[in-house]
Amino acid sequence: MHDLIIIGGGPASQSAAMYAIGKQINFLMIYEKLGGRVDQVTPADRDYLVGSIVVHFDFPDAEDEEDHLIGSSAVHLFERQIKTRTGRVLNDLVTQIKREGDVFHVATKHHGVQQGVTVLLATGAKPRSLEVPGAGELLVGNLGYSVTTHSQQIANRSVGVVGTTEYALYGAAEFAQTAAQVYLVIPDTKIMSLPIAQALTQRPNVEVLAGYRLTEVVGRFKVEQLVVERAGQPRSLNVDVAYVDVGREPQSDLVKNFGITDQDGFVQTNGSGATDISGLFAAGDVTRALGEQVLIAIGDGARAAVSAHQYLLTQSAPRQLGT
Amino acid sequence: MHDLIIIGGGPASQSAAMYAIGKQINFLMIYEKLGGRVDQVTPADRDYLVGSIVVHFDFPDAEDEEDHLIGSSAVHLFERQIKTRTGRVLNDLVTQIKREGDVFHVATKHHGVQQGVTVLLATGAKPRSLEVPGAGELLVGNLGYSVTTHSQQIANRSVGVVGTTEYALYGAAEFAQTAAQVYLVIPDTKIMSLPIAQALTQRPNVEVLAGYRLTEVVGRFKVEQLVVERAGQPRSLNVDVAYVDVGREPQSDLVKNFGITDQDGFVQTNGSGATDISGLFAAGDVTRALGEQVLIAIGDGARAAVSAHQYLLTQSAPRQLGT
Repeated sequence: MHDLIIIGGGPASQSAAMYAIGKQINFLMIYEKLGGRVDQVTPADRDYLVGSIVVHFDFPDAEDEEDHLIGSSAVHLFERQIKTRTGRVLNDLVTQIKREGDVFHVATKHHGVQQGVTVLLATGAKPRSLEVPGAGELLVGNLGYSVTTHSQQIANRSVGVVGTTEYALYGAAEFAQTAAQVYLVIPDTKIMSLPIAQALTQRPNVEVLAGYRLTEVVGRFKVEQLVVERAGQPRSLNVDVAYVDVGREPQSDLVKNFGITDQDGFVQTNGSGATDISGLFAAGDVTRALGEQVLIAIGDGARAAVSAHQYLLTQSAPRQLGT
Repeated sequence: MHDLIIIGGGPASQSAAMYAIGKQINFLMIYEKLGGRVDQVTPADRDYLVGSIVVHFDFPDAEDEEDHLIGSSAVHLFERQIKTRTGRVLNDLVTQIKREGDVFHVATKHHGVQQGVTVLLATGAKPRSLEVPGAGELLVGNLGYSVTTHSQQIANRSVGVVGTTEYALYGAAEFAQTAAQVYLVIPDTKIMSLPIAQALTQRPNVEVLAGYRLTEVVGRFKVEQLVVERAGQPRSLNVDVAYVDVGREPQSDLVKNFGITDQDGFVQTNGSGATDISGLFAAGDVTRALGEQVLIAIGDGARAAVSAHQYLLTQSAPRQLGT
């Protein structure tokens, strides 16, 4: 029996595990893959992964040597710390979570059923993709963690953004600061009422195409045109680079039976990572955490772990420290 | 004119600055001292400051050499990154914040008035102290960042905790896992209704002294006894070590005129670090952020910076990237 079972391998989960290590909580971490979406950041963008914290340096006065030193020596700090805890980590897939009495039964593919007093779900979310000819090969992922990551690639160029989220709008606004031209394609006009959408319509180098949908991505080796259409009228946009952010799919199937997910599948938590099921906590992209920033996921992971810890300490039976 | 003025030098403020650097926001950071309360953690406790993240390792299988290497090379990562941004940092005291039109006027002691479109307040909090004979010399700070930091010092010993906060109760519950005896002195009985207080009364090695107040700390070189009293009846508790957590004093005087502080002086924010004053954001100990964990402060600092950034992007006039 574990006091805390952490499910997931991304920043929120890692941060929760680091807290659990520090507090000597008898925890178990189960994940298929360490790193979460942090892995989607390419080293070529000069991002430094510092204990899974994505830090992007572009300043001329940055001391490159030192940055590299710190970056590479600390790059997998969290991961290394977690991996040295023999018996604390299962590299496995969780197939089911049930609650029986006060105990969670967490079924895994290869390691049977693990029991826990508390469960912290940090299984993340997957970016939605567009099923449009050419999109798979030619589009540069989704806006992902950091628009700035790409800012060198878009300076003085023509950028297409296909977006259905508020986050995509802020991304387009960032692009507009350095790009020559931004085409912002908004298939679902509902988000046009947001202040940031209205602000974008005022930018001289932004064209907002509300109610248009993407039908094709054209290019050889790299994207050259986005073909969009509205009311049967097609239009071709010349772009040097294009980004898509059409939302993310929270990986919350495991807790669907608990009735704690909202209409889009995100796990609902209070401000401290607790769900309405006592003993069940969640953090990171599987919740509606703002901003898709790794630093935020790290904070929320720790916060949910603190909540789980406080829950454990409140149990009347004193527990043994894990070793 | 700056787009963002960050006030404070602790983890929340540093994290906000790192975000601002990554996003190339035209920011200014003003602080008297970098580090915040992280500095109160003693190196002797084998805490590693990883980019200001306090991580505590006590596991027998920890690879000490490697830990040290990572710890020392990364110890001041945030600080070094921030300090290399010439012109981005003022080592100064902020004396006043005023809002005139859409612009914040931030008066400093030595660098005149700095103007900002947004302000992020992360000025922290000071632990309250007890004015009791012997307390100043003999008490081991307050519970501070991590009770576990002290867990080696209290194993099988007698521990006194004087607390008025929920956090102190969780700290006492942690001590009870390894200490021989915990005396928990609760001057204000209001918090006795919390579930964690009730749980503590059930622990065999915890004596809860509700309604008692500390009158003297007795000892030579180190604490030996806590003298407490209730209704004129004194009582002496033999302790090997003692901790006090009687709350913290948010450093929020600068924004008192904005009417955004609660009855205890904490700055009230929404879940994303925004206050009711548009353009004014806050994070860290100056708010009611849970848990006093550095990781949480880092997450909240980034979150408030994201909010400030989104506010800036929503302004209709396009802004220049700072360099």
